[in-house]
Amino acid sequence: MTRNHTPKTLAVLLRARMQSDPIPTPPPHPSPPPPRTGPDPDPAATPAATVRHWLHASASTASPAPAALDSFSDGYRSLDRVGRREILCSLATEYDVPRARVRDLMRQYMSVASAAASGGGHAEAEEVKEGAASALYRMERGLRDALRPRYAGFLEAMNAQPGGLKLLAVLRADLLALLGDENAPALRALDSYLKEKLVTWLSPAALTLHQITWDDPASLLEKIVAYEAVHPIRNLIDLKRRLGVGRRCFGYFHPAIPGEPLIFIEVALLKDMAASIQEVLWDDPPTPESEATCALFYSISSTQPGLSGINLGKFLLKRVIDMLRRDMPSVQTFATLSPIPGFMQWLLAKLASQIKLSETESEERNSLGGACSTFRESILLPDEERMIHDAIEQADGNQGIELLQDILKSRQWVKSEKLSAALKSPLMRLCARYLTREKKRGKALDAVANFHLQNGAMIERINWMADQSEKGIQQSGGVMVNYLYRLENIEEYALSYLGTGLIHSSSSLSQYLEPKDT
Amino acid sequence: MTRNHTPKTLAVLLRARMQSDPIPTPPPHPSPPPPRTGPDPDPAATPAATVRHWLHASASTASPAPAALDSFSDGYRSLDRVGRREILCSLATEYDVPRARVRDLMRQYMSVASAAASGGGHAEAEEVKEGAASALYRMERGLRDALRPRYAGFLEAMNAQPGGLKLLAVLRADLLALLGDENAPALRALDSYLKEKLVTWLSPAALTLHQITWDDPASLLEKIVAYEAVHPIRNLIDLKRRLGVGRRCFGYFHPAIPGEPLIFIEVALLKDMAASIQEVLWDDPPTPESEATCALFYSISSTQPGLSGINLGKFLLKRVIDMLRRDMPSVQTFATLSPIPGFMQWLLAKLASQIKLSETESEERNSLGGACSTFRESILLPDEERMIHDAIEQADGNQGIELLQDILKSRQWVKSEKLSAALKSPLMRLCARYLTREKKRGKALDAVANFHLQNGAMIERINWMADQSEKGIQQSGGVMVNYLYRLENIEEYALSYLGTGLIHSSSSLSQYLEPKDT
Repeated sequence: MTRNHTPKTLAVLLRARMQSDPIPTPPPHPSPPPPRTGPDPDPAATPAATVRHWLHASASTASPAPAALDSFSDGYRSLDRVGRREILCSLATEYDVPRARVRDLMRQYMSVASAAASGGGHAEAEEVKEGAASALYRMERGLRDALRPRYAGFLEAMNAQPGGLKLLAVLRADLLALLGDENAPALRALDSYLKEKLVTWLSPAALTLHQITWDDPASLLEKIVAYEAVHPIRNLIDLKRRLGVGRRCFGYFHPAIPGEPLIFIEVALLKDMAASIQEVLWDDPPTPESEATCALFYSISSTQPGLSGINLGKFLLKRVIDMLRRDMPSVQTFATLSPIPGFMQWLLAKLASQIKLSETESEERNSLGGACSTFRESILLPDEERMIHDAIEQADGNQGIELLQDILKSRQWVKSEKLSAALKSPLMRLCARYLTREKKRGKALDAVANFHLQNGAMIERINWMADQSEKGIQQSGGVMVNYLYRLENIEEYALSYLGTGLIHSSSSLSQYLEPKDT
Repeated sequence: MTRNHTPKTLAVLLRARMQSDPIPTPPPHPSPPPPRTGPDPDPAATPAATVRHWLHASASTASPAPAALDSFSDGYRSLDRVGRREILCSLATEYDVPRARVRDLMRQYMSVASAAASGGGHAEAEEVKEGAASALYRMERGLRDALRPRYAGFLEAMNAQPGGLKLLAVLRADLLALLGDENAPALRALDSYLKEKLVTWLSPAALTLHQITWDDPASLLEKIVAYEAVHPIRNLIDLKRRLGVGRRCFGYFHPAIPGEPLIFIEVALLKDMAASIQEVLWDDPPTPESEATCALFYSISSTQPGLSGINLGKFLLKRVIDMLRRDMPSVQTFATLSPIPGFMQWLLAKLASQIKLSETESEERNSLGGACSTFRESILLPDEERMIHDAIEQADGNQGIELLQDILKSRQWVKSEKLSAALKSPLMRLCARYLTREKKRGKALDAVANFHLQNGAMIERINWMADQSEKGIQQSGGVMVNYLYRLENIEEYALSYLGTGLIHSSSSLSQYLEPKDT
């Protein structure tokens, strides 16, 4: 990275935040974009038809011409949503797996394989055996090739092209958006294949770790501002602090996407594991680096929506921890201060379903006279329910869970000391339960929890009023969590979580959990 | 790259040239290397058995522990040839394709695929069709996975590990050496799979182009000295000139192998396309860069024997040409001055077989009295034969081809002006024929010719006494060739060569070819 660029444009940028790769809508050119070279498409064609022309020129040959790939890229970027959908569907269905060929090869393979498997009885000449083995390997290779969709070659050629990896990331982002609307098997297969290839291309071996500092070019720093997804960067001073003394920012770069990290992580060097994001972002002056014993990861942001589901963060964390251990031996604690993005959503859904259940029950009780539902659970403990009633000074017939729902929805409770005090106990208890017990397909329901647990972290502590920003209150009632990376346990914890879904948590978490839960 | 390192060690190095990754022999440790962590192998085991232990620990799980992979790497590097062979065979055969599972999945697939193919007759509900399509895609994905050898996961995990890519390159170099001795189908399949993966990992998108200069660290420059394979670097002055005014050196770097180019190319900026390597390496002073109109590629060397067969040079050339065009608009000619490594070998084999043929013939003539062989060709023209006879002042019964064989084998002819003059005409003619006509599987027989032709070059000119080094005389009788990259034809020439084996050559080449050949 070259040095000494003054990030002047950043001030402007902080007012008008960047949008990454906007999809033109309506299409900017009613006429097709000018092709760079090669046989021209029909000049009267629609923009999407022109892009399909370049798609066919690129995808129907073993070694597509770079110019055709470039024309495809330019054309695709200029298309609106409808046009892009047409191209993606065309790619997914017209360059699919060659099924007839696969069936032919399978029939051949089955006969050779069963002959080879049954031929073990009597002694054969070594050469015959070797010949059969060679044939099997050759056919397996042929089958592997045939089972690749025909768009595989197009994707690979595109990746080898300058700018191609970025285009493929854009393409996958569009694909993911499309799959949200329609669940076509061919599109899903294209996404799954493209994801598989991206995982290979973005192997950690191909990525470079770079410490981002105030000396980096403004063009890079503006990307940090634009893509910081966890705790938005408010102004130039905020940005400078995050890159200054007591702070680190590391990005993972790929040679094909220069000047733009695929993912970056922000670290604060502190005396203790912080319990609120306010102290991380705004403590002044920062801890002298020589006194730091804790590296706190307080933000991880990825910049390419098209790389969703590809766990670059895991390797980034590992490399950053390794680097900090080497450079700062006094730092012994590696922890995060993380949001709990799904907590409120889960809790409100839980409250709604329980309220509904209790209404149905009371109707049933009225009509049938009795019998308590087994689906009913006590979300609030009696003490907690009492405190809430006291806090709002309203002891009418409303149930505690209905009151809680109303309070949480209004989001005004944060401003009332009394309400906050009344909510602390139930919210902390329910949050501990949400993080340690609530699962989906055997994995933590919370996406951030799942990310850190699969990387080998444990849940160390939850913190009240740790993020008082509007987003923090809305997502998690202001609660944040520290995940702890214990160097000696990382591999073991990752394996047990991935294998059996076991979530490791500290004794500090147990205090919030009911005895039956622990 | 950091700057201002004085390459002091280079002087030492130029005396004792580096050996890359030497295989220890005899094994340096009779006892197994200390494992870094994890369950210990049997301490009484042989070194190879210890490495197998780590291989099994790494290859038999979906997510191998980094420590096991590291132990494998360390152990493997410390093994001698015999030990490495044992490990490679173990990897190739014990973690092969799971054939029984493949057959099961194929049976399932065949029944679903034929049902789907035949079910098109009557109208089906959309959901049923979609369900069947989903099932097909899922099974195809499953089959693709099952057809991957079980070592695929091990290779991928190793590649993701720091230092892993380098280890895999070492492993493949050993594998290639092994395949030279024994042609086991399992080993060949391992090589083919590993090569396929390496091609993906070393996609040009993952490589960075860096101009290597005298300001680069000595640790990098010593690699250039060690790996320069075409025209060895004789001393520090030679190296400095190749990185100085009128010269360029570019390397392709991969983030996982820092400080060491995978391949590098040396360029001279000249007024005209050079006709001898002497003027490229030793002209003094060099052409002022502002007067240069020709970029002459005079050396391409790859550093990793394990990456053999992976065409990194093609992309390197393309990127270097693009960069030079941008930076130096006055440079219009992009050409090489290349060795012809297979010429003498081919010619001597040709002479030997013709001499043998003529001996057999004369015996047959003696016994049967007549009939000329159809396999006989006139290697020398009558004029050429006469000139050779004149030059050695020996007009006895010996045939011209026998004399030519003797002269070429002795390699002393270069020192005689008369002999050189007599050989020029036949050697240039035969060299033109060798380059433009001699093929193997439809491609140019000469490896360097094949490399440039498949990249889209044409054969522009052959040059007499262009490389008078011992190696040059031995390989090609001192003849060198200029391949020309004509920007407007590169893609077209590459396609026609790859498709039909068509070799483009200039009219300057035709003068050497007999009318029937042109």
